[in-house]
Amino acid sequence: MTETSTKRAVFYISDRTGITAEVLGHGLLTQFDGQNFEHTMLPFVDTPEKAEQALTRINLAAENSPNRPLVFSTMVNVEERNIVSKCNGLFIDLFETFQAKLEQELHTPAATVIGRAHGVPTNNSYKTRIDAINFALKNDDGANTASYIDADIILLGVSRSGKTPTCLYLALQYGIMAANYPLTSDDFDGTQLPKAVKPFHNKLFGLTIEGERLHYIRQERLADSKYASLKQCQTEIRAAENIFRAENIPFLDTSNISIEEITTSILHQTGLHRRLR
Amino acid sequence: MTETSTKRAVFYISDRTGITAEVLGHGLLTQFDGQNFEHTMLPFVDTPEKAEQALTRINLAAENSPNRPLVFSTMVNVEERNIVSKCNGLFIDLFETFQAKLEQELHTPAATVIGRAHGVPTNNSYKTRIDAINFALKNDDGANTASYIDADIILLGVSRSGKTPTCLYLALQYGIMAANYPLTSDDFDGTQLPKAVKPFHNKLFGLTIEGERLHYIRQERLADSKYASLKQCQTEIRAAENIFRAENIPFLDTSNISIEEITTSILHQTGLHRRLR
Repeated sequence: MTETSTKRAVFYISDRTGITAEVLGHGLLTQFDGQNFEHTMLPFVDTPEKAEQALTRINLAAENSPNRPLVFSTMVNVEERNIVSKCNGLFIDLFETFQAKLEQELHTPAATVIGRAHGVPTNNSYKTRIDAINFALKNDDGANTASYIDADIILLGVSRSGKTPTCLYLALQYGIMAANYPLTSDDFDGTQLPKAVKPFHNKLFGLTIEGERLHYIRQERLADSKYASLKQCQTEIRAAENIFRAENIPFLDTSNISIEEITTSILHQTGLHRRLR
Repeated sequence: MTETSTKRAVFYISDRTGITAEVLGHGLLTQFDGQNFEHTMLPFVDTPEKAEQALTRINLAAENSPNRPLVFSTMVNVEERNIVSKCNGLFIDLFETFQAKLEQELHTPAATVIGRAHGVPTNNSYKTRIDAINFALKNDDGANTASYIDADIILLGVSRSGKTPTCLYLALQYGIMAANYPLTSDDFDGTQLPKAVKPFHNKLFGLTIEGERLHYIRQERLADSKYASLKQCQTEIRAAENIFRAENIPFLDTSNISIEEITTSILHQTGLHRRLR
């Protein structure tokens, strides 16, 4: 931003990754529609020199816009925090605001060294996470039905109903071993479950999607193919849902929700717990 | 928790996924070492009935422990929030706390309908994200060097230095097209870059790791193999770092940091921007 901008600058500043500041700041700002923001991450501000640099950068943005910047901070180090909090912006301190309340409740002083929200992984949690990622990669799209015995959950659904991203998200964020199995024309003769997944009924969860939405997604992939035609999409979806209902498999419509919402809904409905903390 | 527990119950409650509440609540609690917490997500509390159920659950936990629960909330709906905020716990309202400040600053009232932090994805952002995930899957482990022209970044490193999880995280969370190429013995004759990546020098970023740590990780995978031996690990790492230095490729030691920290550091160092918001 070297010239005057009508966008309002938003900074997410932290002595660590800044992910927490970004998630909460962004969550707050989604409540304010129609505003134009320019987002900047300022991570790893963990020395007084870096804090001074960040301060300069924020103040420059303040000079170049009629609207002062918003600064969401999860700085823990007091010295660096004191430097940045003097900026010519609205400084919103996400940690300090709640710290006193929590100290009083927990009868413990908060650590004044930088937080470990995404800190040094223990060997154990590292292994859980990597094992889950490798499991999702190996068990994508019905590739490896032999290891379903080790799965926490097996997602079922037609091609492009959201199975792969959901499995990866379950693995990366929660350390959950998630496989997925595609339902194809071969499976739609009756309302029977495919042989490969039948023995794992209690691990099954279905994903479904609206016909129009699936048509749109498949068009992006293979335009004007039979695979992408609205009729084919509707037929497959109806057949898949018939199986879910006949076999009493819980299922979810992914049409209008994000990967985060699909994943959270699945955990909520199945009672599966995160393996990472 | 049906019997008296010395753990303190922590609830993350939201009318949407609860991910924001969990990230900030967890970030705050990492500042309090040595405390024993029992974490529970209460997502999708979007009707008065569900709010009453959540209230009952929190109050039950309060009865069964000498320590009252901590409740981190990102409830936006006022009616449901008013029900839950009466609980017998420390109610920490992550949104309301900052709402008035932001309303004043932005001269706009906050929306009082539920937030969209992880809300309805637009076709555009959905496509960006899915394309990035598919790209990471297809370009894992040097599998598809022909499409490096489309990559935003290409990670280089020895086997098990953290390339795959980092690429998947870049894709899922940021929509960035990330490929990775493994450095193997074939590449270690000199300090030359492998032919496949040479034309893409400005997209290259190296991952390195400490010998002991790599040895530990590889032992988990192939115990007592030459591949996992400390000597082999050290030799490969030295050769890889020689290439990074000779070719002036930025690189990062992944030994003691999380996938979140690796990713954030890479974005910070390369200046790459998220493609998702």
